[in-house]
Amino acid sequence: MRDAYHDDLDAVSATLVSMAAMVDNAIVRASKALLESDRALAEEVIAADAAIDTVQHELDNRTVDLMARQAPVASDLRVLVTSLRMSADLERMGDLAAHIAKAARMRFPACAIPVELQMTILEMSRVASDLVNKTALVIRDRDIEGALQVDRDDDQMDRLHRQLFITLLDPAWPHGIETAIDVTLIGRYYERFADHAVSVARRLYYSVTGEFAAPKN
Amino acid sequence: MRDAYHDDLDAVSATLVSMAAMVDNAIVRASKALLESDRALAEEVIAADAAIDTVQHELDNRTVDLMARQAPVASDLRVLVTSLRMSADLERMGDLAAHIAKAARMRFPACAIPVELQMTILEMSRVASDLVNKTALVIRDRDIEGALQVDRDDDQMDRLHRQLFITLLDPAWPHGIETAIDVTLIGRYYERFADHAVSVARRLYYSVTGEFAAPKN
Repeated sequence: MRDAYHDDLDAVSATLVSMAAMVDNAIVRASKALLESDRALAEEVIAADAAIDTVQHELDNRTVDLMARQAPVASDLRVLVTSLRMSADLERMGDLAAHIAKAARMRFPACAIPVELQMTILEMSRVASDLVNKTALVIRDRDIEGALQVDRDDDQMDRLHRQLFITLLDPAWPHGIETAIDVTLIGRYYERFADHAVSVARRLYYSVTGEFAAPKN
Repeated sequence: MRDAYHDDLDAVSATLVSMAAMVDNAIVRASKALLESDRALAEEVIAADAAIDTVQHELDNRTVDLMARQAPVASDLRVLVTSLRMSADLERMGDLAAHIAKAARMRFPACAIPVELQMTILEMSRVASDLVNKTALVIRDRDIEGALQVDRDDDQMDRLHRQLFITLLDPAWPHGIETAIDVTLIGRYYERFADHAVSVARRLYYSVTGEFAAPKN
């Protein structure tokens, strides 16, 4: 039988899972706005970021309130401290999705991504969405094997990111400096998004085991 | 008269101040390595980042240990939770300084920054160092007025960052795509470094007052 305190801990975890779903929604729609040059959708993603911030704020207040009321020690304290860190990662992922939406808006009605890079960016957006979805399941199921898998899956993002630079640095690159700057920054946003997903998964691993997952390299 | 617990809280604050000094050292030396194309210095900065990570790790362990042993409530708990967040910001600032050192190393023996942008980068490095130094004093003195000033001073970094893009986007830019990518990423690292300094200062404001500083815009 669970007591009210452990119900509260479960609710913290459930809120992290729903934050991850909001962040997934943001990255999927920001990517669509970017690749389809959809200004209205970009505006929606930018406006929706405030809701993620609000959820984080309320979650952190609840988490600190639990610390104050319950004076947890050992593993319960570890879960709460880790929750604060995971919510910060997820909030930042929302910011990065909003940055991608802002890049889409800035170049409207043109597309910030030239046609020969659209497939790479589409793949980056799919990897990003996949990582955050897997991270949500890792949190929900306190799945330490899944956490290690998220870490390994991030290699795909690194590969796509390198591919982006190979295209940019081709001597035949015809799109000029402004587009190169856009692509560089957008690539960086996807890469950082993935890094934060990995960070959330690694924190979950620590939350469950009290040990740090070994670095993948 | 102070008790042992409040001595421990003071020690947490003192460690944050010394982390800020390590981070200042990192950004100053990374910038020198970048502008003077000094590979040995770049290597030193990259190697020294592990020491910042170690200090953060030990500090966070001590902070969580204080939470467990003392079961703080209200303002003492706020101070400890905020300390975890400030140490995460400072650790990230160390990473960003190391990224700048890696950019220097990658282009050695050439300089990643063309001569017409060196003054702007030098100014960005000075603003970055100034922000982290002021932030250290804000932490040491629990200075909420100083915290608001750090927030305002960040405008200088935003101005320099815009100036960088104006130069990159000049139709007469003669340095090609690779240099534009380097400058874009390096500019981003300085901007993010400053954002994290502002974040530390704002967290200190919250730690002291229990209120969030109003956004500057």
